[in-house]
Amino acid sequence: MLALYYAPGACSMAAHIVLEESGEPYEPRRMDLAKGDQRAEAYLKIHPLGRVPALILDGGEPLIENTAILPYLGKRFGLWPTEALAEARALSRVGFLATNVHPAHAHISRPERYATDASHFPDIQAQGRTTFHTLLKQIDGMLAGREWLSDRYSVLDPYAFTFYVWGIRRELPMGELKHYTAHRDRMLARPAVQRVVADEQVKA
Amino acid sequence: MLALYYAPGACSMAAHIVLEESGEPYEPRRMDLAKGDQRAEAYLKIHPLGRVPALILDGGEPLIENTAILPYLGKRFGLWPTEALAEARALSRVGFLATNVHPAHAHISRPERYATDASHFPDIQAQGRTTFHTLLKQIDGMLAGREWLSDRYSVLDPYAFTFYVWGIRRELPMGELKHYTAHRDRMLARPAVQRVVADEQVKA
Repeated sequence: MLALYYAPGACSMAAHIVLEESGEPYEPRRMDLAKGDQRAEAYLKIHPLGRVPALILDGGEPLIENTAILPYLGKRFGLWPTEALAEARALSRVGFLATNVHPAHAHISRPERYATDASHFPDIQAQGRTTFHTLLKQIDGMLAGREWLSDRYSVLDPYAFTFYVWGIRRELPMGELKHYTAHRDRMLARPAVQRVVADEQVKA
Repeated sequence: MLALYYAPGACSMAAHIVLEESGEPYEPRRMDLAKGDQRAEAYLKIHPLGRVPALILDGGEPLIENTAILPYLGKRFGLWPTEALAEARALSRVGFLATNVHPAHAHISRPERYATDASHFPDIQAQGRTTFHTLLKQIDGMLAGREWLSDRYSVLDPYAFTFYVWGIRRELPMGELKHYTAHRDRMLARPAVQRVVADEQVKA
């Protein structure tokens, strides 16, 4: 059985939704980041950087990084394209979200990772906010004229939904992003998404 | 025929090496980032963020993000694991390099992405340097007791080699990283790597 280390409202929400969609039993292992669960010695053996998510595979091996966890779950549950070119496009989208969108937000939420002098944090946060907003607009553009980021519902959609939630949290004008907001609405119509939103108590 | 947009010494070096290894003809399209080639209107249609690499597929479609380009090339040229679990591990490593190691270095080379006040740049660069060095030590640990990052030579190795070169560029004490330095030596013994190092004129 799979197990997922996750924290409410973190980027682990994408994998959490996918596992809920799957119908397969899994063990949710909730972390309290404010209490420092992610820095416990046992957890650092699973994830040396002390982050979520971490997926524990059936044999007990941990798998980290959304760029690996989401394709793995997608293949297992039929939420991932099988054709080579479509798969490459999906990996490109996962990469865009993981290497650009997520780090931009981290500059808002974790400025201490990027500078030592706290008086520099507001500048870093403001710039992160600008970059994050610009990238959310790009996601909006990707969703123009389509229901889902790939040809059909895939693991990309819960991942994009997670960043929509982060946009709300940062009080960005998300309603202006019409395609992305319609995507959010489609996500919220799914029972698995509703269960995760309730469990993680996020504003969506 | 594939075409690769690359810039000397940039993270496109990984894909460049893989294409050289392949023996398949391809079209190298060299970009001059100092001249702003990456911000040309035509290029922004290929890569909206104005970055390298971009791989142009046989049908003319562009593929961006190393998290997609490297697995795509790896599958095409037999430099990628085929078994599901081994593939997940490889994607995790690509993700670690793309979402942690690369952005840490960007704080050294491109502080203007992360703050607007230039007086904050030295702090951001110093912190980026510390984080980058810490992550290179993690790569060193991953290479302990093994020849290559995966069970055999794969697209992960040119990617890790690229960050070794960046460590030299930043004058980090790379020689202290024994496993990573031995990996660099193995890379430099490969004719394809030698050709790319000569073409891109990097210190390795």
